[in-house]
Amino acid sequence: MTNGAETRRYRAIIAYDGTGYHGFQRQANASPTIQGALESALEAIARQAVNVIGAGRTDAGVHATGQVIAFDLAWRHPPEDLKNAFNATLPEDIVVRRLCEAEAGFHPRFDARSRTYRYRLWQAPLDEPLNRHRQWHVRGPLDVAAVKRAVDHLPGEHDFASFGTPPQGDNTQRSVYVAAWRSEERPDSDACLHEFVIEANAFLYRMVRSLVGTLHEVGRGAISPDQFGEILVAADRTRSGPTAPPQGLVLATISYERAQ
Amino acid sequence: MTNGAETRRYRAIIAYDGTGYHGFQRQANASPTIQGALESALEAIARQAVNVIGAGRTDAGVHATGQVIAFDLAWRHPPEDLKNAFNATLPEDIVVRRLCEAEAGFHPRFDARSRTYRYRLWQAPLDEPLNRHRQWHVRGPLDVAAVKRAVDHLPGEHDFASFGTPPQGDNTQRSVYVAAWRSEERPDSDACLHEFVIEANAFLYRMVRSLVGTLHEVGRGAISPDQFGEILVAADRTRSGPTAPPQGLVLATISYERAQ
Repeated sequence: MTNGAETRRYRAIIAYDGTGYHGFQRQANASPTIQGALESALEAIARQAVNVIGAGRTDAGVHATGQVIAFDLAWRHPPEDLKNAFNATLPEDIVVRRLCEAEAGFHPRFDARSRTYRYRLWQAPLDEPLNRHRQWHVRGPLDVAAVKRAVDHLPGEHDFASFGTPPQGDNTQRSVYVAAWRSEERPDSDACLHEFVIEANAFLYRMVRSLVGTLHEVGRGAISPDQFGEILVAADRTRSGPTAPPQGLVLATISYERAQ
Repeated sequence: MTNGAETRRYRAIIAYDGTGYHGFQRQANASPTIQGALESALEAIARQAVNVIGAGRTDAGVHATGQVIAFDLAWRHPPEDLKNAFNATLPEDIVVRRLCEAEAGFHPRFDARSRTYRYRLWQAPLDEPLNRHRQWHVRGPLDVAAVKRAVDHLPGEHDFASFGTPPQGDNTQRSVYVAAWRSEERPDSDACLHEFVIEANAFLYRMVRSLVGTLHEVGRGAISPDQFGEILVAADRTRSGPTAPPQGLVLATISYERAQ
């Protein structure tokens, strides 16, 4: 059913709290998913079957502030009205920040030039209850200078096979454009907030969480910064440290050739 | 049952995410409550009936980073062990930040010299999914200079009957030591984060939320700063603006004559 309107492709930037979801991608055996919630809302609004494509397939418990999606819809009103109806229909843990008509054939994943993820660690004797769904709580000292030396191995084109598996095909080569570790001490509470930011052309499955888990091993002295570089060069999935938990991770930005 | 140990009074500083609770105080007809969760954990650890007293009776959905509690317990090990067992037993949305032996007769509410609350407002076209349980989402312009002029009426001793009802008795006189409004623009997202901080000897029931709701009326131009002052002087509960929702409010600090 197309209610007489022409079918057009739309693109949108969405933010979500991934805590209550089994990841972005619709699955046969796990619900709710972000994709499922988006499709249900659009189907309720426009009374037609809708397939939503996302730029990044975030895992269960992973958040987004700048996920990009696209979908085809027969909609006779302005995009702004669709955005408002979309936000009014979605659950409160998903928000549509922008919505506009896309060029025909626009694909949020294939057309993306780069993705930026942020990962937040709270280093303190105790976790913060209000932030427990958005940070990894780690205890004990961390050698930030060593972590930063390890992070310096990341920019450039590398085979990242040590830190993840490819979503499809065998290619594990990725180009990292930016990798930075920032630490902010909270002297009043004996705590330190750390944030790892990484921008790359694309990512392997679990890559950011595997990098953070291994960088944490560097911070606590189990691996040296040079050994981190050797693990990267080895391109061997068995060499990396543990995978950091999902709740610290946020899909922050997706960049395209032309700004939306 | 006292397991052979002497009964002593303990005091603790706790932090919690109030989202999932019907407020601090145990109630006959609503659960869970923070008090109930604290008492259940202590009873499971020490196998004796425990009554927890809190310094502030936060409402449903209100959070704390510095709530102070006291309880009597027969415990034969060091307080640090009790703190660790307490944190291991409590649900993850409640954390014991400090725990020590109290002076005999210490009462967290009667002995408190002042309380500090913080209230957070997110002014933007859209809410942030990850912060939706910790801020009040408001739309439309806010005249921050007007709000600050209204806030300047608050320090000092006043009859706050316009902004709340007393928890017990008829006395609605309270002394405000600090009242401040801070605003931080986020130019990249067309948003502004506001925080209202207030320290007073004590508060009426719903007082901070009633003040924030009325200050928001000043910000959007429905009430002038001078009218805000007149509402305060009127000491008439029917004169205040709407009560702001609970999720923006945090019980931040309780001060005593002697630091813990």
